[in-house]
Amino acid sequence: MSLAVEITDTFEELRDTVARLHGELTRYELVIWTAGNVSARVPGHDLMVIKPSGVSYDELSADTMVVTDLYGEVVHGDLAPSSDTAAHAYVYRHMPEVGGVVHTHSTYATAWAARGEPIPCVLTMIADEFGGDIPVGPFALIGDDSIGRGIVETLRAGRSPAVLMRNHGPFTVGRTARDAVKAAVMVEDVAKTVHIASALGTPEPLSGQDIDRLYARYQNVYGQQGEK
Amino acid sequence: MSLAVEITDTFEELRDTVARLHGELTRYELVIWTAGNVSARVPGHDLMVIKPSGVSYDELSADTMVVTDLYGEVVHGDLAPSSDTAAHAYVYRHMPEVGGVVHTHSTYATAWAARGEPIPCVLTMIADEFGGDIPVGPFALIGDDSIGRGIVETLRAGRSPAVLMRNHGPFTVGRTARDAVKAAVMVEDVAKTVHIASALGTPEPLSGQDIDRLYARYQNVYGQQGEK
Amino acid sequence: MSLAVEITDTFEELRDTVARLHGELTRYELVIWTAGNVSARVPGHDLMVIKPSGVSYDELSADTMVVTDLYGEVVHGDLAPSSDTAAHAYVYRHMPEVGGVVHTHSTYATAWAARGEPIPCVLTMIADEFGGDIPVGPFALIGDDSIGRGIVETLRAGRSPAVLMRNHGPFTVGRTARDAVKAAVMVEDVAKTVHIASALGTPEPLSGQDIDRLYARYQNVYGQQGEK
Amino acid sequence: MSLAVEITDTFEELRDTVARLHGELTRYELVIWTAGNVSARVPGHDLMVIKPSGVSYDELSADTMVVTDLYGEVVHGDLAPSSDTAAHAYVYRHMPEVGGVVHTHSTYATAWAARGEPIPCVLTMIADEFGGDIPVGPFALIGDDSIGRGIVETLRAGRSPAVLMRNHGPFTVGRTARDAVKAAVMVEDVAKTVHIASALGTPEPLSGQDIDRLYARYQNVYGQQGEK
Repeated sequence: MSLAVEITDTFEELRDTVARLHGELTRYELVIWTAGNVSARVPGHDLMVIKPSGVSYDELSADTMVVTDLYGEVVHGDLAPSSDTAAHAYVYRHMPEVGGVVHTHSTYATAWAARGEPIPCVLTMIADEFGGDIPVGPFALIGDDSIGRGIVETLRAGRSPAVLMRNHGPFTVGRTARDAVKAAVMVEDVAKTVHIASALGTPEPLSGQDIDRLYARYQNVYGQQGEK
Repeated sequence: MSLAVEITDTFEELRDTVARLHGELTRYELVIWTAGNVSARVPGHDLMVIKPSGVSYDELSADTMVVTDLYGEVVHGDLAPSSDTAAHAYVYRHMPEVGGVVHTHSTYATAWAARGEPIPCVLTMIADEFGGDIPVGPFALIGDDSIGRGIVETLRAGRSPAVLMRNHGPFTVGRTARDAVKAAVMVEDVAKTVHIASALGTPEPLSGQDIDRLYARYQNVYGQQGEK
Repeated sequence: MSLAVEITDTFEELRDTVARLHGELTRYELVIWTAGNVSARVPGHDLMVIKPSGVSYDELSADTMVVTDLYGEVVHGDLAPSSDTAAHAYVYRHMPEVGGVVHTHSTYATAWAARGEPIPCVLTMIADEFGGDIPVGPFALIGDDSIGRGIVETLRAGRSPAVLMRNHGPFTVGRTARDAVKAAVMVEDVAKTVHIASALGTPEPLSGQDIDRLYARYQNVYGQQGEK
Repeated sequence: MSLAVEITDTFEELRDTVARLHGELTRYELVIWTAGNVSARVPGHDLMVIKPSGVSYDELSADTMVVTDLYGEVVHGDLAPSSDTAAHAYVYRHMPEVGGVVHTHSTYATAWAARGEPIPCVLTMIADEFGGDIPVGPFALIGDDSIGRGIVETLRAGRSPAVLMRNHGPFTVGRTARDAVKAAVMVEDVAKTVHIASALGTPEPLSGQDIDRLYARYQNVYGQQGEK
């Protein structure tokens, strides 16, 4: 594989970060076997770092990560990139504010996606992180830009960092890869809680005003100063 | 951060205890990411020890814990305290018998909270630990004393150490932080068992008399002598 | 505590075995906090080894185990025995073929117990291990022989090594403590599978003849020669 | 046990591989106690390597694995082979393209089997790996060729590598033992997701054309070049 890119320290660190973040997907049981992936935009370049295809999570390291351009062409790395690379690349091309993308088939989020139902905003945690209902994206086949376009169009219509792709599974985005992983963890958690709440009755919805207040506070006040 | 409080050995031990007790929240999968917190009243002072905001459970140690007064003002520690500090502080100000407070968004307990339904006392384990149905508290926005007031008013109306805050999640209290963590573990366990029992029929309720006998025995006889 | 019993090597080994077997309860998530216990009959003595009350699973070792007679009176050990000791002791007094007893509040088995419904024999695994439906025992308060009597009367009416005590949880027995633990693991597993099967329809029952054939084969052929 | 076969390096490696693959069954919680098994055809011989009966997963190693001919007769190893050996052997005799077989009683797949319902192809992941609905096989008693015949007849009628044996549990096959384990992990994952999706409504089916496209792509393009 041609070395079209010089691997600097920053690069090395980003590949290591992306490799390690896959550990959060297994820790929270969002993925099985090799079926989920994290990517990060390389700051200052039209490049991204992404998981290789079909490689198990135990074997991931900075060295096995693949670097591609924003059309999914490999510029560094010995392995073929994730089969979802085209979708990640499309998101980076069309959402410049996004620095990280995650895709899983996590159980409860995928169950909502299989029915084509958005997750209603009935928990303060949903208002905090997603700012409203978590939307459903279109059914799209892998192989061209259909999945990427479906993600971007759905996310642009609201403020949720997560979209449930129909019959497929969730994609999440964030300012950084870590933020996108956090959204992937949280979308599964709330998908499960709202599923369980809905199994025995109807959860009470939050008002739009309460959702707006919670979202504004969480996005601006939560965590340590200067970190977020 | 000003050192308004001298950190004695007892203090150090309490900070270590509170840091370690967060490990029980992850062990029993009551929390994801950074979304849950434990606090302890400092015996003999109008102070409490609480988790810092937005810090992951892997990074917690005695040193990262925050000490605040009972209005949530930091008196020791380099980090901002949990965004739920006001609720914990309100509980300590109004319930002098309480030495520990825990908040999680554990899945099944939060599902009952999303429907605004108390967990019915249909298991000996619920009678033992909670002494009756586990009550629902009001919906309250973060940012002032509303959550704390909702917790205290609901808990004072019965003998349960747990309250399911509507659309939000459970808060539990105890004589010590360890007791509050135990109640957090148990409220999720019984929330799950009763959910599952209710999914295929109607669990049989215990009589008030049986509940009273079980509660009295468990509170007074269980465990090692002189420990509880 | 008086040393009424000489602790021989065999004794020591049994205390170690019982302590270690609690690790299977936590491994399979059948218990939380301190809420479940294993005991073993001491071969050749009217004695049993049982978990101490209210001690966490991380702290169990041969030394912390308690030895009691078959009326629950402590004959060796520094700690108070499990609050379920009377039930275990009653079983050993009335079922001489039983060498081990286990009690948990495992989630799905307890859910069936809360509705007072036996688990129907709709899986080959249930026929193999339980030889038919898994029966429900009566509701009984802790404090006298009621629980023990309920267990024994229910188990004697069939060939299942497990009974679902109403509003309480499962008790299992075995030729050895290890066999009783195996039954505790399996009762939760099949309770979960049959619950899930029943949530979307009605599982097909096995015929009595098929159940008898499966049970006979599993009890006599399975495993290594001479081991079972 | 007679040493009818010389244990070469290749043999040794295969026994080690089969022993280790059982670790994936426990990692993904597809099995409890000793209730599940992996086997592999020995390339170039009419032999297979399989788990010993009733031995716990912690104790498995290359040395404890059993080698049998394709009628289940032991040719190497000190232990009795899995009680499911006849079923594995039947598959190898009748499906020459199969190099690995796995059997579990994983919870959600077994729940579909208990109702005798195929898992409908409503997820891209099902189309990818299973190429359509995941079929149900007949009820069959252990002890002769009934189970093996039921597996082979059901698998031959379609392209799924998994069959849900009625009232029993899933069997999966693959070109290698690793592929069969992957199918076992995936059948449980999609069994769970589709169960949950179906609990609150009806998941939308994929069209036959979309299923064919997804299957063709996944079988030919996914993973690293030359690996699959």
